[in-house]
Amino acid sequence: MSDAPGRSHGRLAISASLKPRELMSDTPRLKGAWCAKVVTLFPELFPGVLGASLTGKALQTGLWALEPIDLRVFGTGKHRQVDDTPAGGGAGLVMKPDVVGRALSMAATGTPADPARWPRVYLSPRGKPFTQADARRFAAAEGMTLLCGRFEGVDERVIEEFALEEISLGDFVLTGGEIAAQAVLDATVRLIPGVLGNAASTEEESFSDGLLEHPQYTQPREWKGREIPTVLLSGNHGAVAKWRRAEAERLTAERRPDLWAAYLARKDG
Amino acid sequence: MSDAPGRSHGRLAISASLKPRELMSDTPRLKGAWCAKVVTLFPELFPGVLGASLTGKALQTGLWALEPIDLRVFGTGKHRQVDDTPAGGGAGLVMKPDVVGRALSMAATGTPADPARWPRVYLSPRGKPFTQADARRFAAAEGMTLLCGRFEGVDERVIEEFALEEISLGDFVLTGGEIAAQAVLDATVRLIPGVLGNAASTEEESFSDGLLEHPQYTQPREWKGREIPTVLLSGNHGAVAKWRRAEAERLTAERRPDLWAAYLARKDG
Repeated sequence: MSDAPGRSHGRLAISASLKPRELMSDTPRLKGAWCAKVVTLFPELFPGVLGASLTGKALQTGLWALEPIDLRVFGTGKHRQVDDTPAGGGAGLVMKPDVVGRALSMAATGTPADPARWPRVYLSPRGKPFTQADARRFAAAEGMTLLCGRFEGVDERVIEEFALEEISLGDFVLTGGEIAAQAVLDATVRLIPGVLGNAASTEEESFSDGLLEHPQYTQPREWKGREIPTVLLSGNHGAVAKWRRAEAERLTAERRPDLWAAYLARKDG
Repeated sequence: MSDAPGRSHGRLAISASLKPRELMSDTPRLKGAWCAKVVTLFPELFPGVLGASLTGKALQTGLWALEPIDLRVFGTGKHRQVDDTPAGGGAGLVMKPDVVGRALSMAATGTPADPARWPRVYLSPRGKPFTQADARRFAAAEGMTLLCGRFEGVDERVIEEFALEEISLGDFVLTGGEIAAQAVLDATVRLIPGVLGNAASTEEESFSDGLLEHPQYTQPREWKGREIPTVLLSGNHGAVAKWRRAEAERLTAERRPDLWAAYLARKDG
């Protein structure tokens, strides 16, 4: 892309000459690579944390692609208005259906309509809480589109028209959907084959078996009068595995009665 | 800070000449302003999303302060090693207690020991799920310290020694704690007086009354054959409020039986 210095976002514009390659990022895009399209008023915040560490390396090598879509350019009028007052009154502003609709139509270009192949997600505190199962589902798709809300949220008709899946990061209120989008993408992208160097690592992690992770220790053997538990230094692999399982069960029962009940139900079932 | 161009992180070093002002960011710091200290291997990822929008403006005007602390400089040896293999074997690496301990001791300088006045949080999928109540509690403190985990997590003895509060963003696995830290800080900082322009806006938002938010609509009145519900255009404030409450209750009952049960219990109690 010698004719396209810098990143793709910020150069995006509605025009007859808009070609798909103009929407691409400056990272390599392997044919068929998993792709995330992010509709946002803050395209410059991406890749953000996703640009670091293993997700960043994978982005650089083209194992996945990121396409931020600047919502502002779809705004109406000289000031490219994207929001308006809520119908029925009240505080704040609501993102306009026509504006968001145009951005989502653009994002839909070249993507499969089947939500199993290409999930379309609206990040909102009203949504279903995001879980590791969602991350696995998203990673198994060909890519996904994420709409980041701001202000009082998006006009309900956009959610209906595009059959958006509403997903929440948790029971707290964020200024916008951008951090939530990065969380969803981080959890998802690291499940794409090749992104993590050590596949064994993901398998042992929290939630893979529905239990919280056991405590971890490393050198030095003694620190501030606190010692590594003797069993971990015994070299007895069976005893280590048994201790870790017991600790994982203890922590889950103590801290997360909901996960513990689900674990017991599966075990008995 | 004419002698300190650029941001504070990256210049941080262990030395006898380390003065508190060298740890400060280049944004103004009002006396007594709420302060976040973030211990991380990726200080360059901050403020990240927090640097945009209202949280970013508030950071610029000194309504809150952000102090990223580079964990790497506390590492041991020529390569500033921060991690080592898990005691007892297994995949991945564990963050060393001595290294993380030195960073947390540095972070503790000048902060109150009382966790109510200065919460110390470790972001980990093993933690208690983060909620809006936590955000309110953190915002009411004088500041907080956040430790971002990487790899297989931190040596358990650090959590015990510093009495860290373990907090999870949700039941999914992130590559590191940095996105979770930004989520916690975003939800918290926006509750600091003066950060949001329109205080009424926070009060009406999701979770403030334990219900999911009602659907929102704005102009145009008709879009793609979909109309704004008539009641919202009626000008009858009582009818609008009643409709919104009914919709919020319907959505909560449909999507979040857990929140709905808690809401009913409070209502009856």
